[in-house]
This record gives sequence, C-alpha cells and structure tokens, in this order.
Amino acid sequence: MTEFFKDIPVIKYEGPTTKNLLAYRFYDPQKKVLGKTMEEQLRLAVCAWHNFVWAGHDIFGEETFIRPWKQSADPMQQASQRVDAMFEFVTKLNIPFFTFHDRDVAPEGKTIQESNDNLQKIADQMAEQMQKTGKKLLWGTANLFSHRRYMAGAATNPDPEIFAYAVAQAKKALDVTQQLKGENYVFWGGREGYDTLLNTDMKQETEQFARFFHMMVDYKHKIGFKGDFLIEPKPCEPTKHQYDYDTATVYAFLKKFGLEKEFNVNIEGNHATLAGHSFSHEVAYAYANGIFGSVDANIGDAQLGWDMDYFPVDITDLTQVLYIMLLNGGFGRGGFNFDTKVRRQSIELSDLFYGHVGAIDILARALLTAAKLIEEGLIKDFVAERYMGWNKGVGKDILAGKFDVEKLAQHAMQQAAPQPKTGRQEMLQNIINNALIS
Amino acid sequence: MTEFFKDIPVIKYEGPTTKNLLAYRFYDPQKKVLGKTMEEQLRLAVCAWHNFVWAGHDIFGEETFIRPWKQSADPMQQASQRVDAMFEFVTKLNIPFFTFHDRDVAPEGKTIQESNDNLQKIADQMAEQMQKTGKKLLWGTANLFSHRRYMAGAATNPDPEIFAYAVAQAKKALDVTQQLKGENYVFWGGREGYDTLLNTDMKQETEQFARFFHMMVDYKHKIGFKGDFLIEPKPCEPTKHQYDYDTATVYAFLKKFGLEKEFNVNIEGNHATLAGHSFSHEVAYAYANGIFGSVDANIGDAQLGWDMDYFPVDITDLTQVLYIMLLNGGFGRGGFNFDTKVRRQSIELSDLFYGHVGAIDILARALLTAAKLIEEGLIKDFVAERYMGWNKGVGKDILAGKFDVEKLAQHAMQQAAPQPKTGRQEMLQNIINNALIS
Amino acid sequence: MTEFFKDIPVIKYEGPTTKNLLAYRFYDPQKKVLGKTMEEQLRLAVCAWHNFVWAGHDIFGEETFIRPWKQSADPMQQASQRVDAMFEFVTKLNIPFFTFHDRDVAPEGKTIQESNDNLQKIADQMAEQMQKTGKKLLWGTANLFSHRRYMAGAATNPDPEIFAYAVAQAKKALDVTQQLKGENYVFWGGREGYDTLLNTDMKQETEQFARFFHMMVDYKHKIGFKGDFLIEPKPCEPTKHQYDYDTATVYAFLKKFGLEKEFNVNIEGNHATLAGHSFSHEVAYAYANGIFGSVDANIGDAQLGWDMDYFPVDITDLTQVLYIMLLNGGFGRGGFNFDTKVRRQSIELSDLFYGHVGAIDILARALLTAAKLIEEGLIKDFVAERYMGWNKGVGKDILAGKFDVEKLAQHAMQQAAPQPKTGRQEMLQNIINNALIS
Amino acid sequence: MTEFFKDIPVIKYEGPTTKNLLAYRFYDPQKKVLGKTMEEQLRLAVCAWHNFVWAGHDIFGEETFIRPWKQSADPMQQASQRVDAMFEFVTKLNIPFFTFHDRDVAPEGKTIQESNDNLQKIADQMAEQMQKTGKKLLWGTANLFSHRRYMAGAATNPDPEIFAYAVAQAKKALDVTQQLKGENYVFWGGREGYDTLLNTDMKQETEQFARFFHMMVDYKHKIGFKGDFLIEPKPCEPTKHQYDYDTATVYAFLKKFGLEKEFNVNIEGNHATLAGHSFSHEVAYAYANGIFGSVDANIGDAQLGWDMDYFPVDITDLTQVLYIMLLNGGFGRGGFNFDTKVRRQSIELSDLFYGHVGAIDILARALLTAAKLIEEGLIKDFVAERYMGWNKGVGKDILAGKFDVEKLAQHAMQQAAPQPKTGRQEMLQNIINNALIS
Repeated sequence: MTEFFKDIPVIKYEGPTTKNLLAYRFYDPQKKVLGKTMEEQLRLAVCAWHNFVWAGHDIFGEETFIRPWKQSADPMQQASQRVDAMFEFVTKLNIPFFTFHDRDVAPEGKTIQESNDNLQKIADQMAEQMQKTGKKLLWGTANLFSHRRYMAGAATNPDPEIFAYAVAQAKKALDVTQQLKGENYVFWGGREGYDTLLNTDMKQETEQFARFFHMMVDYKHKIGFKGDFLIEPKPCEPTKHQYDYDTATVYAFLKKFGLEKEFNVNIEGNHATLAGHSFSHEVAYAYANGIFGSVDANIGDAQLGWDMDYFPVDITDLTQVLYIMLLNGGFGRGGFNFDTKVRRQSIELSDLFYGHVGAIDILARALLTAAKLIEEGLIKDFVAERYMGWNKGVGKDILAGKFDVEKLAQHAMQQAAPQPKTGRQEMLQNIINNALIS
Repeated sequence: MTEFFKDIPVIKYEGPTTKNLLAYRFYDPQKKVLGKTMEEQLRLAVCAWHNFVWAGHDIFGEETFIRPWKQSADPMQQASQRVDAMFEFVTKLNIPFFTFHDRDVAPEGKTIQESNDNLQKIADQMAEQMQKTGKKLLWGTANLFSHRRYMAGAATNPDPEIFAYAVAQAKKALDVTQQLKGENYVFWGGREGYDTLLNTDMKQETEQFARFFHMMVDYKHKIGFKGDFLIEPKPCEPTKHQYDYDTATVYAFLKKFGLEKEFNVNIEGNHATLAGHSFSHEVAYAYANGIFGSVDANIGDAQLGWDMDYFPVDITDLTQVLYIMLLNGGFGRGGFNFDTKVRRQSIELSDLFYGHVGAIDILARALLTAAKLIEEGLIKDFVAERYMGWNKGVGKDILAGKFDVEKLAQHAMQQAAPQPKTGRQEMLQNIINNALIS
Repeated sequence: MTEFFKDIPVIKYEGPTTKNLLAYRFYDPQKKVLGKTMEEQLRLAVCAWHNFVWAGHDIFGEETFIRPWKQSADPMQQASQRVDAMFEFVTKLNIPFFTFHDRDVAPEGKTIQESNDNLQKIADQMAEQMQKTGKKLLWGTANLFSHRRYMAGAATNPDPEIFAYAVAQAKKALDVTQQLKGENYVFWGGREGYDTLLNTDMKQETEQFARFFHMMVDYKHKIGFKGDFLIEPKPCEPTKHQYDYDTATVYAFLKKFGLEKEFNVNIEGNHATLAGHSFSHEVAYAYANGIFGSVDANIGDAQLGWDMDYFPVDITDLTQVLYIMLLNGGFGRGGFNFDTKVRRQSIELSDLFYGHVGAIDILARALLTAAKLIEEGLIKDFVAERYMGWNKGVGKDILAGKFDVEKLAQHAMQQAAPQPKTGRQEMLQNIINNALIS
Repeated sequence: MTEFFKDIPVIKYEGPTTKNLLAYRFYDPQKKVLGKTMEEQLRLAVCAWHNFVWAGHDIFGEETFIRPWKQSADPMQQASQRVDAMFEFVTKLNIPFFTFHDRDVAPEGKTIQESNDNLQKIADQMAEQMQKTGKKLLWGTANLFSHRRYMAGAATNPDPEIFAYAVAQAKKALDVTQQLKGENYVFWGGREGYDTLLNTDMKQETEQFARFFHMMVDYKHKIGFKGDFLIEPKPCEPTKHQYDYDTATVYAFLKKFGLEKEFNVNIEGNHATLAGHSFSHEVAYAYANGIFGSVDANIGDAQLGWDMDYFPVDITDLTQVLYIMLLNGGFGRGGFNFDTKVRRQSIELSDLFYGHVGAIDILARALLTAAKLIEEGLIKDFVAERYMGWNKGVGKDILAGKFDVEKLAQHAMQQAAPQPKTGRQEMLQNIINNALIS
C-alpha cells in the first residue's frame, strides 16, 4: 500500500518545551484529566472531505492542491486511495476517530444502485482499514446538497420524488454508518432552507423536513442503530436561510414535531459565528436544553461572513467552551471533529499536519485549563453563590409555584427595595486568563 | 388644555399628487382594501416613549430636543402634559391607537405603592382622553429594564426579591392595560439575558423566566383580561445576549415550557436586522408557527449594529412584509406600532410629523401594492404549482406517513432520476416591483 | 449561426401598464432625461462571466445550469459559441455595452503565448460581432485571480516571476481592450491582499502593487489607449483582506503613490455592502474625491457576508444612488454593468432575461425618479440653505484661511451661543418616496 | 484628602503563581524586555472618562454606579474629587499615565469663558497632583460631540459659528494639554460625519475638517507644543458614518489635504472591530503608511455592533498586535490607554481594579510572548525568505523601474511557468501559540 506522507512520522507528545513543530506539546492521549484520559475527553476526529477531497478551490479560484492520492483517472481507484491516505493520516496524528460523507468517500454513480454499490465497496475497504488500524468512526452522513437535484432542498424540496431520492441516499449512508459502528449519524441540511421567501412555503417545507426525520428515526430503531442522531445547525450558506439556523431554532423545530428526544446537535464553531453567537453560547444553550451532542471544532473569522473552517487557534475562546463542557459532563457519544480546511495557499502535505497538530494541541491545552478551573472551583462557587436565593425561602417557593402574582406583589410591597450586586465579569475573566498558566 | 402642535393641522388624505408634505398621499383610512378599511388593516399606533419622553440623547450625546411638554419641574405635572401632547399628536395623525410603558407615562416613586399611585393617576387621565378622542390602546407594558435594580434581569435576576419586585410592577401595568381595554399586553425582556456566560446559569434563568410567564398567564385569566400576551424578540442590546433572541428562539422557549398557546410575538423590523434576519423572515416564521401577533414598524440600518428605530422608508421590503401578512390573514388583535425615533438632529416638533406621515404613507402604499399582488395571484399561483406534487400521489402518501424509509427508497430506485425546476426568483421579484405602479 | 434564445424576442419598451413580463416598463432607450437619452445616461452593459461561463456552482454545490453554448468538447469552439450567445443576448436586451475578462472569453493555454493566441482569436470574433451588431465594449480586464499561480497575489505576489506573468497577461488584455475600443480598462485585485498578516509584508506588497500600476499607466500612454483605468474596490473574498478594500482605501493608495489622476473607481453595490458602507456612500465618496468612474450594479444581501451578485431590486436605494450621480453629472466613460448572477436555481435561459429586464427597469425607474428630484430641487435647495453660512462672512473667511485659532476663538467668545438647526432627515426621505410616484 | 479606594493597596507584581487576584502576574514595570523596561514598552494610561464620570447608564438603562467622588452637589467640587480619585487610582495601579477630555474633568459653564475658567482650575489641580504623584499625561482632548450644539458636527458643522465655537474649545484643551506636558493631543471626531447623505455635502464638510486641522497645526507650532497630534479612527456610532472611518480613510484624508506629516492615528481595538478590521490590521496599516501613533486598548465584541469598550482579554489577538508593534519599533510618544469600561453590572469600586489589573497583565503577557517571537525570529525569517526574490535580480529591477510592461512581458514569456509556494499559515499560527508557554 502506498505511503502518502512518507516524510512525516507518527506525531508524538514531547511536552511544552520541545522545538519540534510536528510534535504535541499538550496532547498526551493517555494522560488523565478529571478522571478520563485526554483521548477519552476530546474524542478527536478528522474528516475525509476537506482533507482528502477538497482541492483548494474557492469561489474565485481553481484548485491549488496537487495530491498524490488523486492521480488516478479511475474514480473508484482514486476513492480507494483517498481512503488509504485518510487512514494513514489519522494513524500518524494518533487520534481515534474519522468522519465521512457518502459522496466524499465514493463517487456518485449513474443510478442510485450504482452509487450504493460504489459506497459499499469503499465501506468494505474502510471496515478493513478500521480493523487494521484500530481507528473508529465518529459519524457518517449523506451529502444531500451538492448535486443539482438538491438545489431546492432534499427533504424540503418542492418535488416529492427528490424527497424520495434523498431518503434512498440517506438510508444507504445510515446502513454503512451502522456497518462501521459509527458513534453517531449526522444530518446537515445545507439546502434545507430558502433562497427567497417569494417562492417558498415555509410551513410546508418544515413539515416535509419533520416527516423525513420521523422516517429516519423509525428506520434507525428498526435496524437497531445504536448511535445518536445529530443535526448540525447553520444559519445560511449555501442558502439565504437554513431551517437549522442555530441551536435554538433546531430545538424549536424538534419540540414542535416531537423529535427532541431523538436528536442532539452537532455544533460547529464557525456556524455559531455566522449565526451571530459565540461558540460558547451554542454549547451552553445545547446543554441547557438537553440536546448537546458533538462538536465540529473549526472556527470562523470574526471579520468574514462565510465559512472559513479555520483550525481553532484561540485559547481564550476554547477554554470557555471546554469549561462549559466539563461543567456539564463533557461528551457522551460525540467528539471534536476537525471539519477544518488548511488555507488554499497551504499546498504542501505537511501543511495538513501543521494545521491538525496545532489544533489538537490548542484543544488539549484548553482542556487542561478548563479542568484546572473546574478543580479550583472559583467560577462555579461564584455562580452558585449568585443564585443562592433561589434554593431557599421566597425564591424556592416561587419556583415551586407557591406564589401567584397577587401574593408575590404583596410580598414585594412589604420588603425594603432590593439592592443589585456586582456581576464581577472582569474578575471572572481574569480567573480564566490566570488559569492559562500551568 | 395646552395645544402643543399649534402649527400643525389634522393630517388629511390628499392623494398621490398633492404637494403638501404634511398630507397623506396613500393613507386613506376609510378606503377598502381586501374587504377591510385601511385603518382596520394597518391598525396604526404611536408610542409614548420615543416621541414624548426620549429627548434626543445618545450614548455620546446629551439631549437635543427641547419640548414644550417637558417644562414643568413637577414630574407628575410633566407626565400629565406628556399624555396630553400624545393624545393631541395621535388625533392630528388621525390614526386609531397609542402604546405605552408604565415608566414612560408616569414617574417612578420611592416605593412600589407610590409608583403605582403615580401610574394610576395618569391611567385615569388617559382613560378620560380616550373617551374624549376615541383613541384606543394597542398595548401596554412595564419597563423592567431601566432601573438599576434590573441590571441583571427582572424575571431572570439572580435575586428572587427582584423577581418579586418585577411581578409587582408587571401586575400594575397589566391592571392598567385592562382598565384601558388594551388590545394586547407586551413583554420586552431587555435585561432578560446575559452579559457574560461566566456568571450565568442559563437553565436556571430560563426556568425563572418561564415561572414569571406562567404566573402572568394565570393572573391574566383570573382578572379576565381579553387582550393577547405578546413577547417582543430582540437578540441583544442592552445585553450581550437576550433569551428572546428572535422569533424561533422565543418559540423554542414557549414550546419547552408549554406556553405556546398563551403568547404571540411582537416583531420589530429593527430587531430582525440585529438578529441577522430579514423583516419578512420573522413575520413568515411567526405565521408558520402560529405565533404572529403584532409589529413594531421601526427598522434598522443594514450597516449599523444597534437599534436605530428608523421610520420605515423602503417600499420594496415593506411590500414583501405586507404581502406575507395579507397572505396569512393580516392582523388579529395586533397592529403596526411606531416605536420609531426621529433623528437626534430632527429637533423641531414638525419633524415628529414628517417622520410619522412618511412612515404611515409608506405602509399604506405597501398595503395597496401587496393587496394588488394578492389579487393578481401571480406569486401565489406560482408557489402553489411549485408544491403541487405534495397534494397527490406519492407526495401526499409521504406526508400521510404511508411510506417508511425502505419502501420509499425502493420507490426512488425504480424511478427515472428526478429533474430540478427553475425557482424563478428574478421573475417573482419583478412581479413585486411591477406591482408598485398604480 | 446558432440562435440560442429562440423563444425570446428583442425586449421592447411597452410602458408601465403592460402585462408582458419580458418587456420594459420604464427603460425607453431614446427617451430624454435631463438632456440625454436614457441609453446615454445609463450606459448599460452585461458581463460575459456570470451569464455565459459560470454554471451555477457554489461552494457547496455542483453546476446546475445546462447551457446550449457549452456543449462542445473543444474549448475554443465552446468559447466561440459563448461569444455568439453573448452578442445575441445583448442584442435582445437592446442595450449598448458588454464587458469581459480575458479568461471568460478564451481558455488559458499551456503557455502565455498560447493563451494570448486563444484570446486574440476570440477578440477578432468579438470585433466582427461588434461590427455586425453595433454593440460596444464598456471595459475589458484580465483575470489575475483564478489560476493557482495567483493564489498569493498577482502584482503583490512574493514571487517576482509571478508579477512578471501577471504583467504579460494584463498587457495582452489591455491590447485587446484597445483593439475593441473599450471605454475603460478595469483592475480587480481579488488576490491582492492577504490571508494572514503573519506571512505578509504589507508595505512591500503595496509598493509592488504601485509599481504594477505605474507600469500599466506608462504602457497605456505609450499605446495611446483612450479609455479610463478603473480600480474595483472590494474588502475581502476571496482573501481575508484586499488592498482595494473600499473607495477611501483605494484613494489613499492612489494618493500615496501619485496615481490619483490616472485611475477612477469601478464601484460595485455588493462590495459596498461587504465593506460596511451603503452603495450611496461609495458613490458619494468617489465624486467628492474626484475618482468616480463606473458602476457594477449588482447588489448584496444585508444578511449575508459574501458576494451574492443579486440583480438590483430596491428602488429606494437605487434612487438615492442615481440622485447623487445626477447631482454630480452622471457618468463620463463609465456605465452600469451587470456583473449579476441569476440564482443557482434559476436554471432556464429565460431566467437570464427576467433578471436583466427587471434590473434594467429598476435602474430606469430610479433614473426617472432621481431626475424628478433634481428638477424639483427640494433636496438640493435644502442642502444649499443648510451650508449657506460658509459662502459669506465668517464662514467664507474661515475657509479662505483668514482666521487663525486665536482670532477665531476670540470671535466665538464674543458671540451669542450658536443654536443647532433641524437636519430634516425624515422630511428629505419623504421627498424621495414621494417622487417615486410618476 | 479623601482616600477613595481604602481597601485596595498599591497593586504589586507577584509573579505567575500568586493566588492574589489583585496582583500582577506578568506586569513587572522595571523588567527589561527587548532593551526597554515593561513600563517604557507599554506606556500604560487610564482615562478619566469611563472610570470617573460614566455612571453605568446605557441606552436602555439608568445609572448603576454610586461613586463616593460624585456625592457633592457642586459641580466644581465634584470635578475636583473626580480628579483626586483618578490620581489615587493611577497611583494604586502603579502605571505612569492618565488621559482626559476637557468636559470629563471640568463642567461646561454658561459661556466659553466660564467653561475655560472651570477647566483651568482643574488643570491647575491636575498639575499639582502630577507633581505630587509623578504621573504623566499621555494625551488630552476636547469633547466636541456631547453638547447639542455639536449634533451636526463640530468642524464639519453646517454653521460656521459652531466651527468657531469648536476652535475656541479645542484651543483651550490644547493649551491645558501643553501646560500639563501632554505627550500627545487627540482628535476624535464623533460627530464629524453624517446621519444621512441627503442633507450632507461631503466635500464641503471634509474641506471644513481639513481647515480645522490646518488651523490647529499652525497653532500647535506657534505655541511650541511638543506632543504629537493624533486622529482616532472610528467608522460610526454615534453617527451613521464618520469621516475618520478607519486608518486607511484617515490616511486618505491626510494625504489629500497635505496633513500626513502632522498627524498619527490613535487606534482603538473596538473601533477596528466596528470597521470590519482585525485590531492587528489597523496597527499594521498604520505602520506601513507611517502614521502609527497610540493605542486605545479597549476591545469590542465580535457579536455586537456597538462600542463595548471591553477590557482586553484575548491573549492570541494581543500577541499578534504586540508582535507587529515590536517588529516596527513599538511606541514613540504613544502608549496603551485604557478607554475601557467595567460592565454596567460591575458596580463595586474593586471592579475597576479587577478590570485594569487583568488588562494590564494580559498586555504584559502579550508583550513577553511577542518579544519571545522576535527573539526566536521564526516568523520574521519565514517572511524574509518569502519575499527574498524582490531583493535581487528581476525582482529588484522591477521595483527599481528597470522594466516596462513590454520588456517584462517578454521576460515572462521566456520563463518556465512560475510555481506557487506554501503560505504556511497554520505553521505560523502554531509558532505564536507555542510561544505563549513561558
């Protein structure tokens, strides 16, 4: 089997003082952090798509990457080599998971059957590689957005035959995900939205969308798929408005159609940015409403309004994300997936490693800092103290429904005017920054 | 009684060709549009706040307006004059409604009781003015955001005593709204959110928020208030993040806490902009989910990230909003309220009229254009045709739950590949622009 | 020669009341508006790129358009057919101009020489078509951004050999533009910027950029090209930051390097949006600083942060743009170019017409409204009155330099406190909206 | 003299491991970094305005801070106490500088003369305090934006008498700044812009603006003021558009009016965010164009569109800013000023310290990290290598003007096709993150 990254050895933990730019300074997979290993806490994955399929094109530019695994003229042979490259890559990064879209790993055929056959062949190859390397599947998914048939949506398409086509495709992707013992199955509805309200029946489309999910849930239970179903929120791009706009909008949809017990969210940092939220907000909202699932660790650019899929670099932001996660118990079946892109100018194979090694390390470092914050307890104690009034006396009685408006108004009128207390935002931020020092 | 706008007569409909800048070109209150009068369709209101209290200050500048109704040193006398000015203004605009916050119309006292007494006196004056002028109350509300006690929220405050205070204040505001036969009662949670997640327990706070609403709903039913309860979405400002972020987030909250039958939304154009949505989107989402209530017609600035509260001027945007509204039956108990501000440099009394007259006219014109679009039926027919497949055959069966994944996948595999159809966005936009010509 | 748009006749002016969706309601080419014909005022052009090359792909989706002029497997034959299709299109729209990029109209060859030969063949075909149809070239340009060699810039590339390559390509594009008697030659520096400051020497790169422009200016004078040189501002996309960020940044650059007399700007509505400016602002700034050149009439989406290239639809915005233009004398050698895209779902050939016909009409209507505003003079007179103080007495003396700080301070201390006057923003906006009614 | 911060001792450097939240972990004033002390490198200042005048109000809320130095009913006595509080504060923070606006430190009187007298009294008190404490003035400025007379601008006002008033006020502020040996004098043109283009003559207004600056420059030279003149860019807020939009726009203005040698910019992080730029970009642009002056270290919120004036907390961003600064020689007469605000909920006096101590420490840490990056030289060497081609052969000749278009095109056609090289963005970002570990 071809070795694609010949010059790159397996990346090792060498500690904070190493000079080696292709070593981990903080990611030490077996190190215990709050009772689990780092590997178990972070559950890191890389994606097939941006690393092995995307070739550096953007909306104004052609391909810039010339990849050794894309030299074959035969699409299936090329697909097979991409998969080999991916397993080599994951192995050399020394992380446990990978993720894929059906159309990333295997080419679309002329018919559904042919597409399914293509996918099955590659799935069998992946199964073999998993066996050999010990790598696992964090999630699989179906690409229901690239082909022109889906230009007006897949499940939300005005044409029921396209809905049917999408179901057939998603079925196969889920079958394969089950075969590969995927921890989750993801739905990203890139075309499930509208370009203009003028030609759109929003109510009709969201009912179709709900039908699709109900059908998939039934099928999941029928085949006994053990993984979680995840919806990936995104506000826009490619469409003007997507129905899975952000975590709150997804939750509204799930509640409306009685699906909230069957789905969690797969939050992406970059999508939070596009939706006008902080990354932390999306994570906190998901936990507060019981739908936190998994995370795509790629981030956006505060100055740019489209998907950048940067590798995460900002330790301050990530520490807050990890802190909220640890406070809420961290991942269940989810993990941190890198749906990241090296920049279009980063055309060397080594750049794929620079990107991931730095990103893995910054997540590891954020994990260590967040764990320290949890152990110190300064922030948690402050917050507990702040809401203390609700655990006793009037506060407790209010929440327990023991007051009606009249009774409580009467109570208020008998009290001295309540006085506000400092929110201590600056001090709390300092505590985070202080914790960054090991 | 003092006449404040001596130089301004009652604004009249003079038709499109008038040269008079203080006349209506399109707003002809008794003209029938789709079976109702314009007055009934638009249900126009002006607010007490920005017109009679706000004095032109902004975050970098002092007051610029010197108003004749604010010359008294006695707060209650000043309040009384403000109310007189407002009724004169609504009368001269020849529109049916006004709206108010408790603290706009009457000054806060040293105790809740004193504040209530102040409010009651002004309420009685308003009742009398309503009697005299025939003007009606579109909605009342309580200001639970300006006083320092609410700096960390009212219902979502960490201190239950502040929650109690807020309940006492909201009770009185609702009592007064009932006395004045308000069509609705509005909740705007300007401080119900967070400045930083670090000091915030989002789950706790939203549970408090839900408790507050449940209590108010119970009280509403107890006192037999006939109006609707409205929540006004806004994403941020004054806080970093508000729990009523946008219509979808409000709907998620209502569904979670079983409140969706008791509340509608009061959508503001400017808040849609701040949340990253088009005005039309918020309206369409509200109708699609059964929570459309009322509209604050003020709009934002696409280039600026804070509340501008401009008077609406863009006929293209407004026509789309009105079109969606008419398609869905228009207002129930809601209406178009102008929570607009004249610019800080518009310091003359006549500027208040220029602002409102232009805005009323543009709404009237949007109504006429939208009605024309409804009557033509070109857009509606296109949309109906586009989704036709869901009313018969496979489409109908899918929605009826007659297909499971396997059966539908099998169906798809037996069909010829479905072909996409044009979405006709450009043509539909042209139809709107064409309709602008009378 | 193949007729590509068989079902579409030449678009005619039929007046505001026509029911024909493929007719002009307002664009009446020979109608006089402020002393020129509409054709002369608007100087309308369509672009080769988005209409005849782009196939509906976006960053998440494949091609959706299947065009009859793209069926040949031979790139040069396909290029030739695209040109034929374009001339048929411009002829059927009945507008005077077209625009092109070198690589839109002719395929890149293996060497510069081969690319030049390809371009020359197509240029000769265009010359012939121009002769036959009477259509003219508004501007030509070179695509210095799509090929991977330009991924780090063309003139601003760290590699001088790529700079040289870009010069060779631009030379040929200018030669061809001269051959075709182009009214202008445009520079859009899509890659002239940075993805990260970390690998960038901004000072070095802008000096290279200036060198490139100086060389091109010298060459222009040497060959006697009569057209204007235009720089097209854009803040970002594809790069993180482009050196031609907005009109002000371009002007700063031109002034720094003594180029301000040799260049004007080609303002695009969409790029204004991306830079955080109103379309009107960019136009006003360009006139105020003597660098107004031409306009790409495509517009963006206030909610989306990337290039949408919508057809213009908003009459309110466009009227303000046209008003500022007419106030300043309108176009010299520039014109309104449609660098617009039909939506990816608008897959029929007729959609190309719907897009352009609506856009042309809305520009025509904005022109008529703006002309009316000019003739009425209400806004102009208000503004003149507002600044009147600067034409006489103290104001005139200040501008003439007759006061120094001490003398003027002394003057101020002797005056009564000056009083602010209303800015009348609402009234002025109403005047615009009133003018919309013919 | 009253001690206002009784419970707070002078803040000391205690090193990274201290548990004391009111100690410096990194800011060690006399520690040498790249040949200067930290104090000399950072040149830290606090502002009078947000700390001692602003009382926590926002656009929707009243004052929240109850300050001991604001208890006097006599405005001049209150002003005097605010100054005392400020000097105590700067002394306890152990940093060298303060900054002020004229109207922050002394109340406006009924006439210019009275205002000047008020300011002079306070200036004399400040001079005395400076003498006593050894603290210095980083810059002074005049508030030409709060009073209603300036609602339509100061220097750009349509009324020349208001221009004159502004000159009188600026003269006095500069006189006092000279008296106090200010290192700089700042111009922030908060109202020098427009709310609507409809009532604005942009060309006229910018000419007035230039006249104002020329007059001030002449006066500066006449009185022998040794400090630098600084313009503070801001895109908007309070106005729709400000003429000092960003550093590039300021540079364009300076070049146009021949003022570029007399002014530098005072860059604020928050204003960069509002203008759609990274903080680093503004700093890099200023150095590249020779107008870097000083920095307001307050930052914005990537999700919010108005001035937050947060304390800086993000080490990744700040390290890049400091790296660019050190690469270009750091400050001349400028410094880091905290024009920051504690949050409205941070109502305790100690919160003022938490805010500043954390911010000072993060700047100190960014300085140390940036210095390490400079010493390592990895980034600098990479960049030098990247542009190497311009220092020799063809590259050097191009920049030296030895090639014209034809000659260079000919050269390009004789070369093999140039090949792009990796931009290494990910690796460079990792180098920054690695350097964060001491």
